[in-house]
Amino acid sequence: MPVLSEAASTPGTPTPDTSAVVDLGPASALSCRECGERFPLAPAFACTSCFGPLEAAYDLPLGDPEGLRRRIEAGPASIWRYAPLLPVPADVADKPNLAPGWTQLVKADRLAAELGVTGGLYVKDDSGNPTHSFKDRVVANAVEAARAFGFTTLSCSSTGNLAGAVGAAAARAGLRSCVFIPHDLEQGKVVMAAVYGGDVVGIEGTYDDVNRFCSELIGDPAGEGWGFVNVNLRPYYAEGSKTLAYEICEQLGWRLPDQLVVPIASGSQLTKIDKGLRELIATGLVEEKPYKIFGAQAAGCSPVSQAFKAGHEVVRPVRPDTIAKSLAIGNPADGPYVLDIARRTGGAVEDVSDPEIVDAIKLLARTEGIFAETAGGVTVGVTRKLIEAGALDPSLTTVVLNTGDGLKTLDAVAPTTGPTAIIRPNLDSFREAGLAS
Amino acid sequence: MPVLSEAASTPGTPTPDTSAVVDLGPASALSCRECGERFPLAPAFACTSCFGPLEAAYDLPLGDPEGLRRRIEAGPASIWRYAPLLPVPADVADKPNLAPGWTQLVKADRLAAELGVTGGLYVKDDSGNPTHSFKDRVVANAVEAARAFGFTTLSCSSTGNLAGAVGAAAARAGLRSCVFIPHDLEQGKVVMAAVYGGDVVGIEGTYDDVNRFCSELIGDPAGEGWGFVNVNLRPYYAEGSKTLAYEICEQLGWRLPDQLVVPIASGSQLTKIDKGLRELIATGLVEEKPYKIFGAQAAGCSPVSQAFKAGHEVVRPVRPDTIAKSLAIGNPADGPYVLDIARRTGGAVEDVSDPEIVDAIKLLARTEGIFAETAGGVTVGVTRKLIEAGALDPSLTTVVLNTGDGLKTLDAVAPTTGPTAIIRPNLDSFREAGLAS
Repeated sequence: MPVLSEAASTPGTPTPDTSAVVDLGPASALSCRECGERFPLAPAFACTSCFGPLEAAYDLPLGDPEGLRRRIEAGPASIWRYAPLLPVPADVADKPNLAPGWTQLVKADRLAAELGVTGGLYVKDDSGNPTHSFKDRVVANAVEAARAFGFTTLSCSSTGNLAGAVGAAAARAGLRSCVFIPHDLEQGKVVMAAVYGGDVVGIEGTYDDVNRFCSELIGDPAGEGWGFVNVNLRPYYAEGSKTLAYEICEQLGWRLPDQLVVPIASGSQLTKIDKGLRELIATGLVEEKPYKIFGAQAAGCSPVSQAFKAGHEVVRPVRPDTIAKSLAIGNPADGPYVLDIARRTGGAVEDVSDPEIVDAIKLLARTEGIFAETAGGVTVGVTRKLIEAGALDPSLTTVVLNTGDGLKTLDAVAPTTGPTAIIRPNLDSFREAGLAS
Repeated sequence: MPVLSEAASTPGTPTPDTSAVVDLGPASALSCRECGERFPLAPAFACTSCFGPLEAAYDLPLGDPEGLRRRIEAGPASIWRYAPLLPVPADVADKPNLAPGWTQLVKADRLAAELGVTGGLYVKDDSGNPTHSFKDRVVANAVEAARAFGFTTLSCSSTGNLAGAVGAAAARAGLRSCVFIPHDLEQGKVVMAAVYGGDVVGIEGTYDDVNRFCSELIGDPAGEGWGFVNVNLRPYYAEGSKTLAYEICEQLGWRLPDQLVVPIASGSQLTKIDKGLRELIATGLVEEKPYKIFGAQAAGCSPVSQAFKAGHEVVRPVRPDTIAKSLAIGNPADGPYVLDIARRTGGAVEDVSDPEIVDAIKLLARTEGIFAETAGGVTVGVTRKLIEAGALDPSLTTVVLNTGDGLKTLDAVAPTTGPTAIIRPNLDSFREAGLAS
């Protein structure tokens, strides 16, 4: 059972004793995104040579795209249909897990008409996941890594949504969970995290304090046997976002879209979507052609957008101040990679103000019946802005991500969303309100 | 365009001018559930002869079960795979609608172990629908009927959840919506109803007042061209619940379960699940064998359970007082039919107290990672009670319905769900809390 040894010089770096055989399907190694050095599969996240981030590397199934496509199409209606491309064992669908994914790709013709998109506009609606955000995709991958490494407790630092996703996933998998949140979170988020019966620990401090504490815990015996989904399991966890790319292309009829608009928090999701698209090309599942990836941020937390516009290659941290809480990471770890992808593919990074986010949430709800989390308001708002600026071509096939559910961020729209009229229960009162047929 | 004529002697009864050709797929007529008289398809809900409730009657596709099964399996991952058995046109999947259904049937092994079920326990989890309750199934069918009859406004009376489902469905379909709710609903429910941009009218009065007003409006020119999903479109609307039966059996490998536990509000869902199972047998999609249907109510609104236990054939109305608001119908229209089905199939009707509902919500969350609405607490709680009483056989395959999402009834569990500990951000404080590895 290769767990992180205390002898490691730095917590999170691979140690020599992590060479036991681990079955994570096609994942064959960890590789450093900076220097390319390879390490055996282990619960580790930083390169011993250069401290760069590690990610899963694969023996991809090459040479028989038709067979692979048939295998996927015959698979379950969840992310596990893509098991041949994920760091999970082949029998993953038979294990108890939340089986997220295979959410709707909505042909958004009424939204397209409002935005002037003529080339086909689609919303990938991840509010349909078990706990109603894309987090279920990444956590489900972390659960399988936790099982493979023999971890018995699943953990994370969270501002709320991730805690619920981890609590639910651990419950289904029969793992213990212990998640860490700032002590002053809204009651609703605490309930959503705690209802699954795992331990929920409030930390007296900010989210940054919670994060620092978790890093300490990973290097300490008090946290032995614990898999932190977004820390020591991060290389596996993050791969879950690739499934968004797989599903979008399969749902388009095994075809790459021309343009994608993706929200940026840490930036990990955007980079993994790009990775997923490139894997689909490499395996022959889709025909190669150019695609552009656009990143979307809230103006109140837009370090990547600011860097993109300034032509910088690094991202200067900011202090977040926006209603888009799920995107409010002021120092996004994958920011430089996002800048690189946006520039390489011919995309862009743009941001919208809080009022524009609210407007966009309502626009999407009114035209397509999809009630999005604030992050969905960010992507729809940025799409509108990019079209108006001429940066996004309305004559091309465009996919916009909605990564969460409006039920989780009711406060964003509540002040400006209410009844049309209050009437007495009779026809005269109704006619006076001016709503009659 | 056969709309309800003002000349009709009683609102809601079929009129002679409703004979225009309407394409609702295999639905060929309306038939009276009491006297069996048949009427042409129309926006009507009561028999002219006996005032009994009308329901959709079909020319079912008989004679080629293998062909039908292949056609269904090749269909979309939504209720529209069952278009050949629903009152919808054959091309329904190509129209803009929310495409609900095909939600997960979760093999609930950890819950089974706690309840002592050995024959296979499954939770049909309808929180995965677009607006996170089974209402999307019924509303989607009503939308197609509204289109067929040329209605341009979709409406309903609601205590909250249905209003949101109607608002979302109308937005996607490009229909106007105007829904009626009691004026003093919680803000969250009002937001969920109003965010889709339709008209939301608060009525100064109780839900009964809202209902009465809607009945008035249907017979008045002020409501001309309006489809009330749960009134004049009810015979089509209600059919949507059959898809729960279809999906359960297909997901079990085209096999009938032995026992089902279904919540009772009006009782319509339970009767339609029975109808769906009988249609699967009639079309040869599943092999005939006995099945038992159990009904579940909250003790605070248990008129059907009380009648069942007393051996009555009629249901005496009650005044609801329970946290299970979505089941709080004191005078359930389909109560007598539910009693009949429970007795005919060898099932039962049982109820559980509010504390038992909360316990059951937490049990399901803790064992399976499913956070259920109060109605799901009712079915899980009743399942436990029926097993303890020996009424439900734990050695048989059992399916329990969860019809909604816990996010919508957070208040039910909030008072008893909180953090395990609050600590300072350091290891000593963590160790003192007794949660270390």
